[in-house]
Amino acid sequence: MIKRALPVTREADFSAWYQAVISEADLAEESGVRGCMVIRPWGYGIWERIQRLLDDRIKATGHENCYFPLFIPLSYFEKEAEHVDGFAKEMAVVTHHRLKADGYGRLIPDPDAKLEEPLVVRPTSEMVIGAAFARWVQSWRDLPVLINQWANVVRWEMRTRMFLRTSEFLWQEGHTAHATADEARDETLKMLEVYRDFAEECLGVHVIAGEKPENERFPGAVATYSIEAMMQDGKALQAGTSHFLGTNFASAQNIRFQNAGGEFELCNTTSWGVSTRMIGAVIMVHGDDDGLRVPPMIAPWQVVIVPMLRDVPEDAAIVEYCKSLQAELAKQSALGEPVRALLDLKPAKAATKRWGWVKKGAPIVIEVGGRDMAGGNVTVIRRDRLYREDGKLDSNAVARDTFVAEVSGMLHDVQAKLHVESMNRVKGNIVPADDFAALEAHFADGVKNPGWVDVRWSKPTGPALDKVVERLKALKLTIRNAPMGQTGCDDGACIFTGEPAVERVLIGRAY
Amino acid sequence: MIKRALPVTREADFSAWYQAVISEADLAEESGVRGCMVIRPWGYGIWERIQRLLDDRIKATGHENCYFPLFIPLSYFEKEAEHVDGFAKEMAVVTHHRLKADGYGRLIPDPDAKLEEPLVVRPTSEMVIGAAFARWVQSWRDLPVLINQWANVVRWEMRTRMFLRTSEFLWQEGHTAHATADEARDETLKMLEVYRDFAEECLGVHVIAGEKPENERFPGAVATYSIEAMMQDGKALQAGTSHFLGTNFASAQNIRFQNAGGEFELCNTTSWGVSTRMIGAVIMVHGDDDGLRVPPMIAPWQVVIVPMLRDVPEDAAIVEYCKSLQAELAKQSALGEPVRALLDLKPAKAATKRWGWVKKGAPIVIEVGGRDMAGGNVTVIRRDRLYREDGKLDSNAVARDTFVAEVSGMLHDVQAKLHVESMNRVKGNIVPADDFAALEAHFADGVKNPGWVDVRWSKPTGPALDKVVERLKALKLTIRNAPMGQTGCDDGACIFTGEPAVERVLIGRAY
Repeated sequence: MIKRALPVTREADFSAWYQAVISEADLAEESGVRGCMVIRPWGYGIWERIQRLLDDRIKATGHENCYFPLFIPLSYFEKEAEHVDGFAKEMAVVTHHRLKADGYGRLIPDPDAKLEEPLVVRPTSEMVIGAAFARWVQSWRDLPVLINQWANVVRWEMRTRMFLRTSEFLWQEGHTAHATADEARDETLKMLEVYRDFAEECLGVHVIAGEKPENERFPGAVATYSIEAMMQDGKALQAGTSHFLGTNFASAQNIRFQNAGGEFELCNTTSWGVSTRMIGAVIMVHGDDDGLRVPPMIAPWQVVIVPMLRDVPEDAAIVEYCKSLQAELAKQSALGEPVRALLDLKPAKAATKRWGWVKKGAPIVIEVGGRDMAGGNVTVIRRDRLYREDGKLDSNAVARDTFVAEVSGMLHDVQAKLHVESMNRVKGNIVPADDFAALEAHFADGVKNPGWVDVRWSKPTGPALDKVVERLKALKLTIRNAPMGQTGCDDGACIFTGEPAVERVLIGRAY
Repeated sequence: MIKRALPVTREADFSAWYQAVISEADLAEESGVRGCMVIRPWGYGIWERIQRLLDDRIKATGHENCYFPLFIPLSYFEKEAEHVDGFAKEMAVVTHHRLKADGYGRLIPDPDAKLEEPLVVRPTSEMVIGAAFARWVQSWRDLPVLINQWANVVRWEMRTRMFLRTSEFLWQEGHTAHATADEARDETLKMLEVYRDFAEECLGVHVIAGEKPENERFPGAVATYSIEAMMQDGKALQAGTSHFLGTNFASAQNIRFQNAGGEFELCNTTSWGVSTRMIGAVIMVHGDDDGLRVPPMIAPWQVVIVPMLRDVPEDAAIVEYCKSLQAELAKQSALGEPVRALLDLKPAKAATKRWGWVKKGAPIVIEVGGRDMAGGNVTVIRRDRLYREDGKLDSNAVARDTFVAEVSGMLHDVQAKLHVESMNRVKGNIVPADDFAALEAHFADGVKNPGWVDVRWSKPTGPALDKVVERLKALKLTIRNAPMGQTGCDDGACIFTGEPAVERVLIGRAY
């Protein structure tokens, strides 16, 4: 058996493995502040790459970035009862604006500085952005309003898990207002497609885009769509959502426009977001027992050069050799951008550094020792195929010029391979179930990585849906979504109600 | 007299003019949330440009970005008494984590969800980042730690002014830890120089870099340095600061390392930051009575193309002509990046759009009508020279190819010209004062735009400095900084104490 770089394998304990990747790859750590994490340089570098690539796509579809206040007055929430109920009211509330010494060496909130109206730290910004839309929109000429914001938000969580569920997290939230429901629906689906394409092309994470069932809708939404990714333990992770809000928020917030005929109408609005949760998806989709594997498009460094130094005079020549290699690589272009190559000169042993970068998941690690230099070579390790068939580390001496010429194709190849792996996992782990008994059997205790099942249903609503949700909950299951692009449902009955089915939905366990 | 685009001139009322620019250029607006502003697309676009350019410089000097929690437990502040006193304790305090309905249709903080330990919304992150440094640093091999964060911070302000002083603002804060005081001092000055260079090269804002007097030091710092910019009303704006913290924070937070000899030592730390305040400086340095003038390097759009459409069939050809012009411009490179050209197709009159972009301060506005198209021309308006000598708008038909060939040089020229204007203003408005009476006379009531004075002083400390500060305060003056690179002080006495002077300092009114 090959010794792996992490202290625990996916097979042995997936949850402990996930924590180990986060820790060993220097992605994040507990902060000492309840429910909040510190995102470390490698983790934040991945987030910056996600921001850059997604922001380009958000702007290319006509949206502009803005910034809205962190604090939302309590009264704003009272306007939208359904929305607030949905958030279960678990929010951070600011009640004082000053500290004072208590006379015993401690600090306390100053009772004389109590706010007249408490402020809520934004859990999402529909309320405060809607208020701005109401100011901005007067006439049909002002529409559509297409806005996005990159921000931190806070939802008080009792049980937290790094990247997946933290009290504070980073995200982007798009908010738009339109003259018609059709246009707003189109926008909702357009951004869902932006997310799907982004997840697959940039993150290499294959996802299923579809509509969430009524019970999983965003509070106050008319329809909620999601992209669902499959983790290596078969569980689903909702990796992004897009909401058609109809006139619900516009009505609560008085977002109206005068149409070409001079009459006042309510706007139709949308909102959509993805968050640092995406990093959790990348870990659980691409990680292996040696740590993370970062898709090249979102890797802060795509090629890391580790010089093998021995505290001898020859070292200087090796460093020079590596510097010029780094400069040559930076002149290459891969996946539409200049290659990002780092020369790691930190004072540590080369083997320690090599394994550090393997655990971090840099797509390509280059080692350069005296022998490589003498032969005009570099030693190449590809993170996506770390071992040979005999279990030895697959590191190969390659002519330096050949490597430089091939680096672009190699990075392209790693990116594509990770995506294909993910796609095959999704395709290979969704199975149909023709009745509830088959569903139950599929998710019976002891079945490892059951993946998802694909079932026919009649799309019940209200109490009938509640009953379905209850039955699934007993099996720790949820309806993930009804995939887009269904061409109607073949004859058959709903596995829950027995009524004629109208569509197929995916069911699985989820994070 | 030329009619200007803004309702108020700088001359008539500088403060009202500042607000008018912010409003008419769509930079920001009041949010309805006390002390917090909404940063609108054009204002946020400028901030994104500032972030991109400054972030490149921060990374090029070896720093990595991270993200730390928004919330800081109260107990963290109790460790660093001097630091907390300095912040006057005006901070937003989170005391509850849930809302509940009060039974009368309102929401209240749930008394059952009171936090055991209140959380402070970060006013700055020394305390929480220092706690991370204490975990990260064990040995000299872990040093230096070079970290930066882009984040929102909150300091409860009683009197707010958009961009200059808001309760919530956006900034970057760098935090570093070093093995020696010398290295930390070098870092402090290196980042001061990064700020100076950035302000001048990218913002076109000439600044004076120097050390703040003891009374203006960051709470807990050993030395604080600033860049000071001069506004068009002669007031100073502190546009960035860099702090050498010595071992003060390391001692309070136990940031220690084992040196090569095996002994434990305290680290020396630094911190440095700039904020959305820089946008206030850009407005007050470059704005004129027609609105903002944005330096091309930080302009979200450098060239805006306004087609003159008349709801006739010919319109389609004009739009095509403009689209191909936009594509040609995007292929040009200016100031080190591809030209950012926008085609404005919003449904509004061309004249309205032209003046909208003038007020926003787009460096170049292009108008294209039927006649321009027929002649293969474009009509060019340069924002930095809007009027001819006769007071008419200086818009000129130019051959399209000529314009495309010259756009790069033109943008370079606008950038340089704005900087030179700013530099001349600073150089022309700093005058020496040889004694306190001269200082008093310079700032006598009724003197318009007095600028700054440059005086000799003995650098008093403690109560002697307090006395100086008091005397200046009576004249509404403050010591801005002691400029870097002084080659010793020529013979003479301190204008405050009469003792031998040791350096020169700048004195002025300030925002």
